[in-house]
Amino acid sequence: MTTPAALTLDHCRALDAADPLRPLRDLFDLPPHTIYLDGNSLGVMPRSAPARVAKAITEEWGRDLIRSWNSAGWFALPQTVGNQIARLVGAAPNEVVATDSTSVNLYKVLSAALNIAAADTPERRVVLSERSNFPTDLYIAEGLCAERGYTLRLMDVDSHSATTAADLTAQVQAQLSPDVAVLMLTHVNYRTGAMHDMAAVTAAAHAAGALTVWDLAHSAGAVPVDLNGAQADFAVGCGYKYLNGGPGAPAFVWAHARHVDSFWQPLSGWWGHAAPFEFTPNYRPAAGVSRYLCGTQPILSLTALTCGVDTLLAAEPLGGMAALRTKSLALTDLFVALVKQRCAGLGLGLATPRAAPARGSQVSLTFAPPGNGNGSATPTVNAGAYAIVQALIARGVVGDFRAGDATHPERTPDILRFGFTPLYLGFEEVWHAAEHLRQVLASAEWQQPRFHQKHAVT
Amino acid sequence: MTTPAALTLDHCRALDAADPLRPLRDLFDLPPHTIYLDGNSLGVMPRSAPARVAKAITEEWGRDLIRSWNSAGWFALPQTVGNQIARLVGAAPNEVVATDSTSVNLYKVLSAALNIAAADTPERRVVLSERSNFPTDLYIAEGLCAERGYTLRLMDVDSHSATTAADLTAQVQAQLSPDVAVLMLTHVNYRTGAMHDMAAVTAAAHAAGALTVWDLAHSAGAVPVDLNGAQADFAVGCGYKYLNGGPGAPAFVWAHARHVDSFWQPLSGWWGHAAPFEFTPNYRPAAGVSRYLCGTQPILSLTALTCGVDTLLAAEPLGGMAALRTKSLALTDLFVALVKQRCAGLGLGLATPRAAPARGSQVSLTFAPPGNGNGSATPTVNAGAYAIVQALIARGVVGDFRAGDATHPERTPDILRFGFTPLYLGFEEVWHAAEHLRQVLASAEWQQPRFHQKHAVT
Repeated sequence: MTTPAALTLDHCRALDAADPLRPLRDLFDLPPHTIYLDGNSLGVMPRSAPARVAKAITEEWGRDLIRSWNSAGWFALPQTVGNQIARLVGAAPNEVVATDSTSVNLYKVLSAALNIAAADTPERRVVLSERSNFPTDLYIAEGLCAERGYTLRLMDVDSHSATTAADLTAQVQAQLSPDVAVLMLTHVNYRTGAMHDMAAVTAAAHAAGALTVWDLAHSAGAVPVDLNGAQADFAVGCGYKYLNGGPGAPAFVWAHARHVDSFWQPLSGWWGHAAPFEFTPNYRPAAGVSRYLCGTQPILSLTALTCGVDTLLAAEPLGGMAALRTKSLALTDLFVALVKQRCAGLGLGLATPRAAPARGSQVSLTFAPPGNGNGSATPTVNAGAYAIVQALIARGVVGDFRAGDATHPERTPDILRFGFTPLYLGFEEVWHAAEHLRQVLASAEWQQPRFHQKHAVT
Repeated sequence: MTTPAALTLDHCRALDAADPLRPLRDLFDLPPHTIYLDGNSLGVMPRSAPARVAKAITEEWGRDLIRSWNSAGWFALPQTVGNQIARLVGAAPNEVVATDSTSVNLYKVLSAALNIAAADTPERRVVLSERSNFPTDLYIAEGLCAERGYTLRLMDVDSHSATTAADLTAQVQAQLSPDVAVLMLTHVNYRTGAMHDMAAVTAAAHAAGALTVWDLAHSAGAVPVDLNGAQADFAVGCGYKYLNGGPGAPAFVWAHARHVDSFWQPLSGWWGHAAPFEFTPNYRPAAGVSRYLCGTQPILSLTALTCGVDTLLAAEPLGGMAALRTKSLALTDLFVALVKQRCAGLGLGLATPRAAPARGSQVSLTFAPPGNGNGSATPTVNAGAYAIVQALIARGVVGDFRAGDATHPERTPDILRFGFTPLYLGFEEVWHAAEHLRQVLASAEWQQPRFHQKHAVT
């Protein structure tokens, strides 16, 4: 999409009126008086969820009790939901299971990848990741590396508004030294929204002799993903962000067919057993991705997740992930253009690559008080980004704040993060969001002390 | 309780009328036309659950979205529910967190125990457990032992109707050889209902130089447990059995204060970090049991679990777990006596220890067709236990079947398993259950082909 010349409210309304995906908005119960730009943290509730979960509680649990393991399909839910998710991430049927948390699933696949690497390339002793990867991925890798005698090496991949997908790939490629066993990346960066070219980076990793582990937390349901097309090795993803699965919804796990039966994952529980109800004392992993299951799954949360994934599958007749991507880019392009136009000189900077192939479905901004220099001064930490986000929330514009690194603010500044979910977000809302941002900054509203009080969790 | 002389239906009704815990039954929405003896597999739905979870969905998720991490207490739910559960298992406040599955939690604590053992007693290389332990516990231990260079040794602990708690302790003690690093037991056996004396077995293990890991799947909420009183080392337990937390409810984990800060557990995710929202690249475990958290938790399922645990805490003014235990033993004593009286000569045998201190809150029966010999013939497998359970279910008496070991039926026969949950079960129901069992056996109803068709899951 090219940025329209006239970025008026009327123009935005016209875009909504012409939006073929607009009917999908009705699948959601949107919060009142809210412009919700945080679907990348917790997706909005699908309208179908309350009744569906109520049925799971009162009928399946309350009335039918244990027979629901069969009659309501509880036992097969990880596979059932996994097959739904597979359609969104370029996986084949029976290649995905929905289960556990992203962190736990990452432990499983990174362990499997290290098992393969230890057998095939024992001289390689490094897991390579990004310093700005989501911390839990780094924590899991840190523990596994210590346990297995590997080194976790963190690279600084520089992304900014002018970064292209090829820039990102080149930076990763430059770090793929002969000691790298596994390259572990999050596809779309949780802070900046920068997106790796999965196929190109995977090809580079394979050419360099390394395996790939992808975290799709900010890409499943947000951008087209083609795991098999990219020849990726392992992937995990999140159920409660763009998949709209509800708070803490189970995550998912995928392994390429060439690996899936190669190794046990260490969390060898009974749900991953070939015959769990034979109750035999020895572990025998199930064929395929079901071996990545471990213990009994939280059925109520999994049930809500089905409602969330259904909202994405409802887009299939309208063009599916490709159509959602087109709208997502139109929304983020519009927001960037509006911020540039309406908030000029107010201290904001763009942290997200402007090139469409190099970004996900979010826009991240930095802030440096314009009094400290010009409007594009070096962004920093503790200089207002948190308070600006709080002031916006008070106005009903919900984005979120991600803290930078106080010791390296030039590398990792505070971030104002705005997620754009094309399923339920309209162009008019983008206009209002940018206008609220302008008002918060222009009026110094964000400097009110009440917006500087920190909560335990944001 | 001594077995009453006159085991009449009227007598059972009188017991219900005099039962001080009878009002607790009203906390549940009991399934219609059902005598539910499977609370040890999936507890009955608390009456409070539908509205409480509906609120979590429509208000906390649907309306308040991400702010509910603070305002609805989502982020603290593992600790909040953990503190509820602590009161039921003899743990102190802030010693328990509700999280993940039992299998995943067992991986964490067994790993921690092996870390301690490797440091303190490196020459000990054996994890000792029971062959009849719940298989997922053995699978998890099998994987961890292979990874760490330990041997998983399985002992056969013989329990039958005449077994005492001291017999069980003596059998375990005899196996505590100097090479045992960790003794990993399930407190109440999922098949037989035999219960270890946690304090005596822990003392024996410590005297022998071994650490203890206890699985409370069939004891939390079923029998009094005193983890600190027993000086146990580590424990995990299940949320969806006697805690009535709903299908696949999150499990829980406990570590003794002397161990809890000693070691990282390997699933070092961000929810177990000392400061998860600082987003620092290095892992620093939280103080105390919170370091046993890993990834984001399934909030809807955790919310249902609070309702379940509340039903047990509602018994506190009526005497708590001690009073529930008294009733539980009265129920199981009554069932054993009724089966003995009414089903004599029909092929049933008692697999559960008759001595109260040696059993949990369930009664397990074996079956050998009386045509093959007398009514107490050697119990076997594939000889009807499954079909008898199915025939009872068709009559509304829900127990379950646990398969034996076809190659060692004398050691591990098929089991008819009946759980007795004193919170919601009455004495009259026990009378009817035994009478249905008599009718199924006496009429050869169980031999109907329809009861022999196996489901994928039972």
